[in-house]
Amino acid sequence: MKISARNVLKGKVVEVTKGATTAHVRIDIGGTVVTASITNASVDDLKLEVGKQAYAVVKASDVMVAVD
Amino acid sequence: MKISARNVLKGKVVEVTKGATTAHVRIDIGGTVVTASITNASVDDLKLEVGKQAYAVVKASDVMVAVD
Amino acid sequence: MKISARNVLKGKVVEVTKGATTAHVRIDIGGTVVTASITNASVDDLKLEVGKQAYAVVKASDVMVAVD
Amino acid sequence: MKISARNVLKGKVVEVTKGATTAHVRIDIGGTVVTASITNASVDDLKLEVGKQAYAVVKASDVMVAVD
Amino acid sequence: MKISARNVLKGKVVEVTKGATTAHVRIDIGGTVVTASITNASVDDLKLEVGKQAYAVVKASDVMVAVD
Amino acid sequence: MKISARNVLKGKVVEVTKGATTAHVRIDIGGTVVTASITNASVDDLKLEVGKQAYAVVKASDVMVAVD
Repeated sequence: MKISARNVLKGKVVEVTKGATTAHVRIDIGGTVVTASITNASVDDLKLEVGKQAYAVVKASDVMVAVD
Repeated sequence: MKISARNVLKGKVVEVTKGATTAHVRIDIGGTVVTASITNASVDDLKLEVGKQAYAVVKASDVMVAVD
Repeated sequence: MKISARNVLKGKVVEVTKGATTAHVRIDIGGTVVTASITNASVDDLKLEVGKQAYAVVKASDVMVAVD
Repeated sequence: MKISARNVLKGKVVEVTKGATTAHVRIDIGGTVVTASITNASVDDLKLEVGKQAYAVVKASDVMVAVD
Repeated sequence: MKISARNVLKGKVVEVTKGATTAHVRIDIGGTVVTASITNASVDDLKLEVGKQAYAVVKASDVMVAVD
Repeated sequence: MKISARNVLKGKVVEVTKGATTAHVRIDIGGTVVTASITNASVDDLKLEVGKQAYAVVKASDVMVAVD
């Protein structure tokens, strides 16, 4: 499947924390760690676990820009 | 200002394309390029231009995860 | 690629309207038409055109619920 | 109230799962089930329960498109 | 229609700017002006124009918090 | 840090409710209360507590408009 999201960033899962319904997954993208907040169900479906290769996917309209 | 968004990724602006009301800004984050779709007004306010240091900011709930 | 987004709705493209930087794509999902606002670049990359089979993908945290 | 969100999809609630602060509500839209992640407070306010008619509401800028 | 979005802020439209496909609408909420980026089609459907009473609607998961 | 988000609304924290992984923070913006759903980790990092001055930050593309 190919998706319209402009940002598909390849990395490796470094942390998975499940909550009651929502999980936090951290992915290391070449040294930068990105945090995703997804459903517990998705964690199970994608069999996400530490060390697994994964992509952080972000729609361009969800990215903001900041400067110092 | 410090923001709750979990993802504040430091990089350098490599492209700015303005549309009628919406602009696309591309930021190089250590070799990975992230695309942001923001208002033209924001581009002006932040004086974004190629070569400028900037951050791509993404809320954790806007990050998805994908696997091959 | 398998994605964490809970909503991957199969349908057919019924309209593509490009703007200056942003395009609107309408997908018929079994009789219900869903509108997506994506970048022009994505339309080109995915070769989206009327009649093509496609999926509308939405993260669960981006879905609201309303009642009459 | 009429809303700007382009996608207001009529259906019926088929599942409500409350977590600590966040609930997952599943709505059947003519055979396609859409999952919404909303606050527990919203579930109470809207008196959402299985069998109730409801709408899944999604802003066009939150819809992505994918192809096989 | 009653919506799950936690933030339904009553105000008055103070500016409408249409682009190629995307419009910016500014709403004064008791002295604070909120900017919405919506489709041109929504502006037409809702007959939005300066002076009209309207609500800015935001899902709780789309609100970030910042401190100085 | 200056951010591209068009909406940076100054107010005061009036409620903080932590869940398993996700917290709800309510900020009074000149009489209007805005609810943010953010990670527990952000609440800790920003030392958010009732009475503290804070900003509700929302990207323009996440704001919808409604009329009666």
